[in-house]
Amino acid sequence: MRDLYHDELDSIGASLIAMTHLVAAAMERASHALLDQNLAVAERVMSDDVAIDALRNDIEERTFQLLVRQQPVATDLRTLVTTLHINSDLERMGDLALHIAKVARLRYPDCAVPNDLRDVISQMSEVAMSQVDKVAQVLDGRDIALARAIELEDDSMDALHRKLFTLLLTPTWDRGIETAIDLTLLGRYFERYADHAVSVARRVVFIVTGQMPEPAIPIGITG
Amino acid sequence: MRDLYHDELDSIGASLIAMTHLVAAAMERASHALLDQNLAVAERVMSDDVAIDALRNDIEERTFQLLVRQQPVATDLRTLVTTLHINSDLERMGDLALHIAKVARLRYPDCAVPNDLRDVISQMSEVAMSQVDKVAQVLDGRDIALARAIELEDDSMDALHRKLFTLLLTPTWDRGIETAIDLTLLGRYFERYADHAVSVARRVVFIVTGQMPEPAIPIGITG
Repeated sequence: MRDLYHDELDSIGASLIAMTHLVAAAMERASHALLDQNLAVAERVMSDDVAIDALRNDIEERTFQLLVRQQPVATDLRTLVTTLHINSDLERMGDLALHIAKVARLRYPDCAVPNDLRDVISQMSEVAMSQVDKVAQVLDGRDIALARAIELEDDSMDALHRKLFTLLLTPTWDRGIETAIDLTLLGRYFERYADHAVSVARRVVFIVTGQMPEPAIPIGITG
Repeated sequence: MRDLYHDELDSIGASLIAMTHLVAAAMERASHALLDQNLAVAERVMSDDVAIDALRNDIEERTFQLLVRQQPVATDLRTLVTTLHINSDLERMGDLALHIAKVARLRYPDCAVPNDLRDVISQMSEVAMSQVDKVAQVLDGRDIALARAIELEDDSMDALHRKLFTLLLTPTWDRGIETAIDLTLLGRYFERYADHAVSVARRVVFIVTGQMPEPAIPIGITG
């Protein structure tokens, strides 16, 4: 019975990693749709989000069933409860990539991101993708050092987010209110995606060490 | 042993309601700080958020300990797992009220909200407060009809959110980029606060009926 139990625990862990790959692909495609005005790719992100939501529900239900059937001991219970939190974070990352794809679609065939903000948005996207790649590795290997690297990358994301506001608030910036609104929302979506990546990393540290790492101090207007 | 168990289950339920009152007070104070340029109240929201985070951790730990000690049957297990999700939603509502208070503080002694947008922001705040009041009642009485009313109010929030964008995008609107950024973020914070209120309501419906209600269809740019 314990072997079946650990098989199912491993299977749920594998599904969390699969989920991470899906939300990584969503971010990559959403960024591509946004920066290269690709309507088909934007719509792909939208249709793929259904699969992310379905996998989230599947993981939640399987985790619940394992809790019901196995009445696990404290350590395994901690892992399963943490799985539920990680699952929610990942699903939310999928939603945020979806929001980015929706902005791309809304402005198509125009590009939502003007040339002067392209670099900062592109860098935010790169940080997000680097973080989510590490999230998959952390979930797979429970590498605590890598989990801390995800937190450090979040500082880069925050710095880029502040830079975005600085650029938007340059007195000579003249792209208008609609673009300012789009970019404010996009900045927020990238930043929140990164926050959830950090949250997953912190939860894995918690599973491995039994202690939540101290939270980073929030910075800036949206901290 | 079962009596102690149900006492602790009730006690956790009471703590969730206490948490709801805290995040309701945070929203009320943040809105007051924002609309009436009250720096002391803005700072009160910030300091009170520490208590919200502490209560969240306390509820999470007590729920976990109950799971460990009691190995509850399926129905109670469903309630406890749902408690963890509701707890996260409530804590996030506190964060969003905190973000609103931070915008108020950032622009003090000026008002972040210009006169022409005061009505729509004030109405968003009223809807949020009406929703969170109902959340406390739903958690207390598990009134499914009231849970659905929270979802309907979310349609009002979405309509106000769209109205906010319409006002910001009026060609004659001339309050500048900084105000547009502030209001875009504020709109998002109110809308997300409402989303989490809906999420809590849906979770309570799930506890009572065993079925998640069908999700409402998201509307608009941030849906």
